[in-house]
Amino acid sequence: MNDLSASPALIERLKAVVGERNVITDDHGREPFENDWRGQFHGRAAAVVKPASTDEVARVVQALARERVGIVPQGGNTSLCGGSVPDGSGRQVVVNLSRMNRVRSVDPANNTMTVEAGCVLATLQQAADEHDRLFPLSLGAEGSCEIGGNLSTNAGGTGVLRYGNTRELVLGLEVVLPDGRVWDGLRALRKDNTGYDLKQLFIGAEGTLGIVTAAVMKLFPAPRSQATALVAVPSVKAAIALLLRLKRAFSDRLVGFELMSAFSLGLSRKHHAGSPDVLQGHAWYALVQADDSAADAPLVAALESALADAVDAGEALDASIAQSKAQAEKLWALRENVSEAQRREGPNIKHDISLPVSAIPAFLHEIDAALLAAFPGARLVVFGHLGDGNLHYNLSGPEGADARDFMGNADAANRIVHDLVARHGGSFSAEHGVGQLKRGDLVRYKSEVELAVMRAIKAALDPAGIMNPGKVL
Amino acid sequence: MNDLSASPALIERLKAVVGERNVITDDHGREPFENDWRGQFHGRAAAVVKPASTDEVARVVQALARERVGIVPQGGNTSLCGGSVPDGSGRQVVVNLSRMNRVRSVDPANNTMTVEAGCVLATLQQAADEHDRLFPLSLGAEGSCEIGGNLSTNAGGTGVLRYGNTRELVLGLEVVLPDGRVWDGLRALRKDNTGYDLKQLFIGAEGTLGIVTAAVMKLFPAPRSQATALVAVPSVKAAIALLLRLKRAFSDRLVGFELMSAFSLGLSRKHHAGSPDVLQGHAWYALVQADDSAADAPLVAALESALADAVDAGEALDASIAQSKAQAEKLWALRENVSEAQRREGPNIKHDISLPVSAIPAFLHEIDAALLAAFPGARLVVFGHLGDGNLHYNLSGPEGADARDFMGNADAANRIVHDLVARHGGSFSAEHGVGQLKRGDLVRYKSEVELAVMRAIKAALDPAGIMNPGKVL
Repeated sequence: MNDLSASPALIERLKAVVGERNVITDDHGREPFENDWRGQFHGRAAAVVKPASTDEVARVVQALARERVGIVPQGGNTSLCGGSVPDGSGRQVVVNLSRMNRVRSVDPANNTMTVEAGCVLATLQQAADEHDRLFPLSLGAEGSCEIGGNLSTNAGGTGVLRYGNTRELVLGLEVVLPDGRVWDGLRALRKDNTGYDLKQLFIGAEGTLGIVTAAVMKLFPAPRSQATALVAVPSVKAAIALLLRLKRAFSDRLVGFELMSAFSLGLSRKHHAGSPDVLQGHAWYALVQADDSAADAPLVAALESALADAVDAGEALDASIAQSKAQAEKLWALRENVSEAQRREGPNIKHDISLPVSAIPAFLHEIDAALLAAFPGARLVVFGHLGDGNLHYNLSGPEGADARDFMGNADAANRIVHDLVARHGGSFSAEHGVGQLKRGDLVRYKSEVELAVMRAIKAALDPAGIMNPGKVL
Repeated sequence: MNDLSASPALIERLKAVVGERNVITDDHGREPFENDWRGQFHGRAAAVVKPASTDEVARVVQALARERVGIVPQGGNTSLCGGSVPDGSGRQVVVNLSRMNRVRSVDPANNTMTVEAGCVLATLQQAADEHDRLFPLSLGAEGSCEIGGNLSTNAGGTGVLRYGNTRELVLGLEVVLPDGRVWDGLRALRKDNTGYDLKQLFIGAEGTLGIVTAAVMKLFPAPRSQATALVAVPSVKAAIALLLRLKRAFSDRLVGFELMSAFSLGLSRKHHAGSPDVLQGHAWYALVQADDSAADAPLVAALESALADAVDAGEALDASIAQSKAQAEKLWALRENVSEAQRREGPNIKHDISLPVSAIPAFLHEIDAALLAAFPGARLVVFGHLGDGNLHYNLSGPEGADARDFMGNADAANRIVHDLVARHGGSFSAEHGVGQLKRGDLVRYKSEVELAVMRAIKAALDPAGIMNPGKVL
C-alpha cells in the first residue's frame, strides 16, 4: 500500500538528479527524517531526497517547484521546535542536506572558512582547530546538528556573550531560492555596502525563504589561556552587577556568564554523582569564564582580583576558581547537567526566553509569584545565559507528580510566562526559533505591522508558498 | 516664480503636521538640503519637511504616499555617494530627521541606549561616555552625521576591526514604512529568534525601504588603557602576518590596524606641518592600536614584546610606540590627514573597496601595474583599514596635472579598479554605500539573481516606488 501523493514520474525525475539510492520513499527509510529526536513532532513525507551538491539542490527544487510540492529543508534534524520535520499530509518532500558536507576552503589569513550546509558543527570546530583558529559556535547538539540548520535558526549557544549569535558569524551565503535559482552570495568580506544585506534575511528564516547550501563563516584566534570560576551571589541583581564588573575587567575576553538558582544547581548535583560540592548553601550562582588567545595571559590572577573586589562590594559571597582544566570542566558540567537532571527529576515545562538584562530581576520577582499561585508545588528551575539576557526558565512538577497531569499545565504556564516576558520587552524564543511549536506565539506577540512585513517578504520570495510550509509564518 | 509641483493643498497638509516653519519651500531655505557637502550632487526639491516625532514622520509619509510623491529621507546629509539629496525634478520632498534628536533612554545594566534618528553621532558618543560606556561607531563626519544616516548606510569607520559595522551595533529599530505605518521593533535583546530579522533589511537600505526613526544601540565598557604604535613593515604581505600576530596576542583588544604606503604617509607629512618624523625611509607602514577596559592593563609592554617578535620574524622592520596619549594622537593624525593631504596635493580619484585580506597582496600587485600602464605618471595613494580588508585606493594626478584633465580619467580608472576588485572577490563599495554614485556598479557587478531578489523586496515593501527613488536600485 502506498498513499504517497508524489507522482511516480516526479520521483523518477528526483532519482535522475540525485541517484536512485538518494531518494528514500519506503516507510522504514523515511522514518528518521519524519520525526524529531525528542519525539514531539511526527510527520509523513512523500519522499526524502539527499542531494550532494548545490546544483543538485537547485534541480531538485526546480522539479518540486514545477509541481508545487512543499519542501522541508533539513540538516541534522535537531530542531527543538519541529522546524525540520514534514507535516502529516504525506505530500511534502524532505530535502536533507547531510551529503553536502565539504569544507570547501579555509583561509587562515582572512580568518574565514567556506563550508557546505551539511557539515556537522563539531566538524567545523575541528577544521578551525586544525588551522589554529576558533570557530566559536558551540551548543549541546554540536555532534549532530549541521551548520545549515544553525544558520537557518540563527543558533545561539554558549559563545554568544563574546562572539554573537550565528548571524554575526557569517560573511557570505549561498542559497537555492524557492524557484530553484541559485544566489551565490559567498563573499568573504568584512565590509560590503552594496545593496540590501540579503544573507541576514535567509539566516534565521528557518528554511521558509530558500535552502541555504553553503556559507562563509568567520574564524577567530584560538584561545590559549583561560580562567573559570563558580561564584555564589546573593541575588540576581548582584549577579548583574558582577557581570558588569567582569565585562569592565575582561572586555570581550569574558566568554561565559551563566546563572543558576540553588535549586537548579542542586538538581544537577543530585542526578550526577561526582559533581564538585563547592560553595553549598547560597541562593544563586554564576559560572564565569574568561579566555585569551595569548598563551600566558594572567587571567586567573585577574579573575581572583576582580572577584575579591566583588566580594568587597557585596556583589559576590564566595568563589571557587578552577586550578586546572579538569576542574574547569567539572564546574562547567554542573551547568551543562541541569537540563538532563531536570529530565531525570520528572515532568518539566520549558521556556527559552530573553529579556533586557536590566529587566530580569523584576521579571523573576513577578513570574515566580504568578506561577506558584497558578501551580502550587511546582518547582522553578531557573538558569541560563545571563550575559545574553537568555533564561531557560523551566518548571518541574511537584515531587512525585504524575507526568501527564503536570504536562497538562504546559499551555497555561507558557501563556503566563510569555505574556509577562512580552510586558517586560522580552522574546518568547531567544535561541530555539519558531518552527511549528511557537507559531501561535508569533501571531500573539508580534504586531500586525511586523507580521504583515514578514508575510510580504515571504510572498515576494516564495509566492507559491512551497518552502517549509507550516513553519514560522 | 514657483515651479514646484507639490500642490499647495499638500504643502498645507504637511504644515498642519509639522508646523509652518518646519516646511521649507523657498529656494534659499531649501538649498542646504538639496546639495551634498562636497558639491558633487545637486538636486531640487518641492519642499523640505522637518518632523519632530515618529508620529509626525508617519503622518508626513501618509500624506506624501497618498499623492505618490517621492520621499528623500535625510539626516546630516554627509553621504559620499549622493544618497541623501533629491533629484533635479523639483517633485521630490526631503524629509529631514534632524529635529528627532532625543536620546530616549540609556540602560547601563543592559548596555544599550535608545536613540532617535536625528541624533548627531558625536552626541551619542558623549551620551555613552556620561554613563561610563563606549559607543564605538566613529568616523570622520561624526560631528555632523546623524545616526539615522549611519544606520541607513551601515556606516563603517575606524572601530570595525573590533566592534563591527553599524549593522552589528543594533539591537532594535523603529521604522516608518512607505505607506506610513510604523514598525516598532525597538527591542533591546541580545537573542531573539522570532521570525525574519527585519531590522537588518532596513539597515544599509539607504532609505529605499522606509525611514528609520529610532534605534536601540549596543554599548560597551569604556576603554581605560591603550597602546599605539607606528610600525614599518617590508611589504603588504608582512603587514598581514603582523595583523594575524597581533590578533593572536591581543584578541579583540586589537582595535585598529591601518595600512599606509610610504607615498601616502609622505603626503600626510608634506601637507601637515608638525607631523612626527619617526620611521622614515620604509615602503609600508602599519598604525596599530590596542585598547582595554581595565584601568591598568599592561598593553604597552605586551605591544613592545609582540613587535619585537615581529621584527625577529621579519614581519616588521622598526616600530615607534607612543609613550603618551599626546604621542598616540600625533601618530593617528598621520593616518587621518592622508585624505586632506591628497586633496591639497591636487586632483585625485578615489575608491572605497574591500577584499578578502588574503587577496590584497596579489590585488595590489596587479592593480598598480594596470593603472600605471593606463595613466602614466599617476601617483598611487594606498591606505586603509587593512584589518577589515578595506582599502581607500586612490590616484593622485601627476605633479602639476590639470585637475579637469586628470579627473576625465575617473570613469576609466574606476572601471579598471572595480573590475579587478570583482575578480578577486571584493566589493566596489566597502563602507560608503551606493547612493546615486554607484548604481551603475551595482548593475555591473551583482548577479542577475541578486538584483532580482533585491528588486522583489523593494517591490514588496514599496510597491509605489516612492522611498528615495533613484538611489541604490
